[in-house]
Amino acid sequence: MAPKQTLIVDCDTGIDDALALLYLLGDPGVEIGAVTTVFGNTDAETAALNTLRVLELAGRADIPVSVGARSNWCGDAHLAPHVHGSDGLGDTDLPAPATAPSAEPAAELIVRLARQNPGAVRLLAIGPLTNLATALLLEPDLPELVEHVTIMGGAVRHPGNATPAAEANIHNDPEAARIVLRAGWPVTLVPLDATMGELITEQHQRRLAERGSPTTRFTSSVLEQYFDFYERDIFGERRAACHDPLAAAIAVGDVAPVLAPVVSTDVDTGDGPGRGATVADVRGQYRGFPEQQEANVRVVLETDRTFPDLLVDRLCGAPEPTRRVA
Amino acid sequence: MAPKQTLIVDCDTGIDDALALLYLLGDPGVEIGAVTTVFGNTDAETAALNTLRVLELAGRADIPVSVGARSNWCGDAHLAPHVHGSDGLGDTDLPAPATAPSAEPAAELIVRLARQNPGAVRLLAIGPLTNLATALLLEPDLPELVEHVTIMGGAVRHPGNATPAAEANIHNDPEAARIVLRAGWPVTLVPLDATMGELITEQHQRRLAERGSPTTRFTSSVLEQYFDFYERDIFGERRAACHDPLAAAIAVGDVAPVLAPVVSTDVDTGDGPGRGATVADVRGQYRGFPEQQEANVRVVLETDRTFPDLLVDRLCGAPEPTRRVA
Repeated sequence: MAPKQTLIVDCDTGIDDALALLYLLGDPGVEIGAVTTVFGNTDAETAALNTLRVLELAGRADIPVSVGARSNWCGDAHLAPHVHGSDGLGDTDLPAPATAPSAEPAAELIVRLARQNPGAVRLLAIGPLTNLATALLLEPDLPELVEHVTIMGGAVRHPGNATPAAEANIHNDPEAARIVLRAGWPVTLVPLDATMGELITEQHQRRLAERGSPTTRFTSSVLEQYFDFYERDIFGERRAACHDPLAAAIAVGDVAPVLAPVVSTDVDTGDGPGRGATVADVRGQYRGFPEQQEANVRVVLETDRTFPDLLVDRLCGAPEPTRRVA
Repeated sequence: MAPKQTLIVDCDTGIDDALALLYLLGDPGVEIGAVTTVFGNTDAETAALNTLRVLELAGRADIPVSVGARSNWCGDAHLAPHVHGSDGLGDTDLPAPATAPSAEPAAELIVRLARQNPGAVRLLAIGPLTNLATALLLEPDLPELVEHVTIMGGAVRHPGNATPAAEANIHNDPEAARIVLRAGWPVTLVPLDATMGELITEQHQRRLAERGSPTTRFTSSVLEQYFDFYERDIFGERRAACHDPLAAAIAVGDVAPVLAPVVSTDVDTGDGPGRGATVADVRGQYRGFPEQQEANVRVVLETDRTFPDLLVDRLCGAPEPTRRVA
């Protein structure tokens, strides 16, 4: 058996964050060392409580949860109750947590775990990047201590979702995103280009409901709110993008991107209509993306669009194909 | 017969500008009232001389040519000899012009013709938008005097070509582009999303060479330089995008776009990596682009990719299908 990977998941739980956590908890080869939370889908405290609710549902209240940034460094925080419900988790009947978050701030926890396990920690960031940028300020050597960073965020050839140009996680803290992308560590970015192609449907929801476990009853239920948003604002149909779970699956090597060039990538931190846009140099798209000297980010532009089946198989406890790729 | 359309062509001639002019000159239903030039593919004076060379080749030295902006208002001008050759026109043996540009500055000429023909002039802008923005400053009522503006420029879901985010015409003067897009007149934007799908090939070049007229000998010859650039920097093959001719064909109604939503469109005028990006709100792409209150630009995202055949038919003097659409 391959050695366990230690992941720190930085998230803003959030419906799809919850799906990502449940997906990861179902993999015996992955060890979640801690979950840190940040404003985004909901406020950072609620995100921590939601994370605890999900961990307790999965019987994993042993995993430490730490609260992080309440806003970006400009003091702004764009929350998304219209997407994730007023409690950030679809307003289901999931009980309040019995456990409490750690007293250690998120960025300090990230730095501590990285120092304790030099070279052995992977970061999965599925919310705004304020905690990771703060951790980089606290420990400038963090890039040498961390093995890999996977980020759900950005939009390259796909339109944004927070604004015409910008995806919500990056738009919520463009300055932090620029710091994280430029830090010199190996980064995989999973933007809307990939996640908007991986769609969970009502058929998946029915499978989850029929399975009837506490986890699948919750995920089936929470998808109602998510489908409501996607039907109303995005697709005109009841299906939803697997943003955060896809990034999780890529982080642990369950999904091999179909197209993921390593390219020079920056973030627009100006005040104009492009604020928060991820500017990735994909001009080489007609020539197989020739190597770039300044390339700093692996950008996942396409996956094979079968991930929702894998996600639902995992949540239903079905036997899975052997498909780990990294 | 439909009444003649009066077009003012604002250009930076340029290989594909030359193709656009020759395409338009082959249409008996289109009257080019004047050609104004701007820096871009080459400097504004050379663009005027190149325009005269092309007009004389086609026996149309009667059309007035006027020189416009030498740089944008920041004093910058990014020319493109690596694309268009050191003379801006593929370094062929086309003779120097016998005629000379008008003494009237481009922006003044645009304003004068619009005042003389209120509501009857169409603008086709296939270079940086400095002349149009200057004309708007000279005559704030210009939007009421002009019937329509068609612009080759921008990149929406397609990467830029001047930078990862920005297309060259818009990148060369983002401030002017913002002024022109916001002026409140009907604007059709033909960005790289459309033009990079309309590819002229070596087969087309052979047809032009075999036709053997002065015009087709020149166009076949000038394509050598264009193919050199596209093979080396873009496609790895000898084919080239019909940027400016496609915009010309759309301006006169020869090509009906397959997908052209009217959407809110702005330009990034900041100093960051997105400078010159056209930020068009195409987030409604999954729902048939629902109507937007602030929509200001018709953005051509797709055409049917058969335009190069029409272009070469026209240049070869072949009978054309009846396909005018507007």
